Amino acid sequence: MLSYWNDYPTIQNKLQAVCSLIEDQLEVRNKEIQETLIEFANSGGKYLRPAYFLFFTELGESSKQNQKQLTQIAASIEILHMATLIHDDIIDDSPLRRGNTTVQSRYGKDIAVYAGDLLFTQFFDLLTQSMNGSPYLEINATSMKRLLLGELDQMHSRFNRQETVEDYLSSINGKTAELFWLACIQGAHFGKTSEEIESLSGEIGRDIGLAFQIYDDILDYTAKQHVLQKPILEDLAQGVYTLPLILANQEHPEVFAPYLDKEKDLSLEDAQQVAKLVVTYDGVKKAKEFAHSYTERALQKIAQLPECQAKDGITRLTKQLLQRAF
Amino acid sequence: MLSYWNDYPTIQNKLQAVCSLIEDQLEVRNKEIQETLIEFANSGGKYLRPAYFLFFTELGESSKQNQKQLTQIAASIEILHMATLIHDDIIDDSPLRRGNTTVQSRYGKDIAVYAGDLLFTQFFDLLTQSMNGSPYLEINATSMKRLLLGELDQMHSRFNRQETVEDYLSSINGKTAELFWLACIQGAHFGKTSEEIESLSGEIGRDIGLAFQIYDDILDYTAKQHVLQKPILEDLAQGVYTLPLILANQEHPEVFAPYLDKEKDLSLEDAQQVAKLVVTYDGVKKAKEFAHSYTERALQKIAQLPECQAKDGITRLTKQLLQRAF
Repeated sequence: MLSYWNDYPTIQNKLQAVCSLIEDQLEVRNKEIQETLIEFANSGGKYLRPAYFLFFTELGESSKQNQKQLTQIAASIEILHMATLIHDDIIDDSPLRRGNTTVQSRYGKDIAVYAGDLLFTQFFDLLTQSMNGSPYLEINATSMKRLLLGELDQMHSRFNRQETVEDYLSSINGKTAELFWLACIQGAHFGKTSEEIESLSGEIGRDIGLAFQIYDDILDYTAKQHVLQKPILEDLAQGVYTLPLILANQEHPEVFAPYLDKEKDLSLEDAQQVAKLVVTYDGVKKAKEFAHSYTERALQKIAQLPECQAKDGITRLTKQLLQRAF
Repeated sequence: MLSYWNDYPTIQNKLQAVCSLIEDQLEVRNKEIQETLIEFANSGGKYLRPAYFLFFTELGESSKQNQKQLTQIAASIEILHMATLIHDDIIDDSPLRRGNTTVQSRYGKDIAVYAGDLLFTQFFDLLTQSMNGSPYLEINATSMKRLLLGELDQMHSRFNRQETVEDYLSSINGKTAELFWLACIQGAHFGKTSEEIESLSGEIGRDIGLAFQIYDDILDYTAKQHVLQKPILEDLAQGVYTLPLILANQEHPEVFAPYLDKEKDLSLEDAQQVAKLVVTYDGVKKAKEFAHSYTERALQKIAQLPECQAKDGITRLTKQLLQRAF
């Protein structure tokens, strides 16, 4: 999966160390769980969050940095991300993730619950090793809580057709943007930049996270299954209404009501029809405008970073990631 | 549930503050989760682990102590315990816990997964608030990992008739004794006793935890359902073989084979028959000898603590808890 980083050789090198550390952390007596987790760790995730973390550390002076600490923190971010994915897949009953069977569909919910829990403890463990005594320890605890509250918000608003754009943004702000915020602000902090850059980095991370999640949600309405390697419209059948649908439905509720009235009984054909209608009634177009606007905000703030190689890398990666073609 | 502590008024008072803090920590936007967790927190747990923690703090001088910190740590221990119970009940598909319906049987696994996760984050949050910079932060992370590895060991050895007494002891050492160890050693540490007392306190906690779990497992084979408020022999039907069965089966495998061959298809009548046979073939008697021996070890070590009111309380509580009548 690190081939994604072929054009960013210094980051690719550092991510290699992060991967090795994650594999080490996953060594446990229970070989079934260990293999499950290592397979999951190697199953095609891009390591985007640790990569952003590492990019933002490079804004600081390397002579002041502790590389071992940086590798540990980068690993902690990815491990927290993995833990939430595994538990989300239990909630969603997802058969596939990253084109592979999910942990719970392959090994059952027992393994999946404990595998996620074990990752939460490894996250905690890496943090106590790398930043004991730092105020960022509390910041990490708070972020982890916000991540979960974001998931809970989303679960709570299932099948809620009154969900507003604000509700959606607030939910993805916790669910996705929080971790990008954390990756970037921590990168600047432990990379020993200045307080100003640290705060700006956090804002950049949040905008990137929001744009990233909106594009991800748009993909459900536009991508072909073999491209996305994920069952199309899974969210929809679970009552998770994302931005494209919210935007189309708020203007034309009468068009969507016959389908959404079916709730859990929505068929695949119904879901495909809803997807078409979301496109027809400009849901995708308007959602792209939101994503574009967060991307632009991120890029403008990135432009304010001091000139350096890392800034170029951050700009290039963000454009590559967010100026997507559909 | 604090009526259990009527004879220990200072501990009861302090536990009241712990309960209030736990309720505060459980305030989240999602009211369904909040009510679930508060109901669970109030559903009859004795708060045994925080009570031991508080008892051991009282071995130190109160003038040197930070009471707010002690309350936070006491709450963190109970919250970690609650988190593991909620996730264990998902694994076990348990309908009942403490005589009440379990979180997952009442609200579904979705709520139960996230409710447990949220408690893990609150545990982490309380620790970062109360002991940031202390080596006990890493010790807590390691304990949490051992707890999970203990659960995983138990899950891994389901339906394994070759499980030895050593395997069982190693599993409950992680699963149960670890948290009693942590409660007692942390109590001595944050109560500002000496290093010697701290280490002795940890040993006492571990012995108490081992004896406690063995007595708990014996109860499955001796208690009537209405006494235990828990389905009899649930563990057995799930393939969890505990000490009484291990001891009886290792001497008379031919007696138990016809029943254990049925694995998951064991009926309630079969299970009741196994329970009778475990008693007949001295499994309960021998398991009691183990529990008794750990209890004695704990009491001997407690006797080595410096004379004070807290020591009397610890002795009295341990006898009350572990010198059980069957």
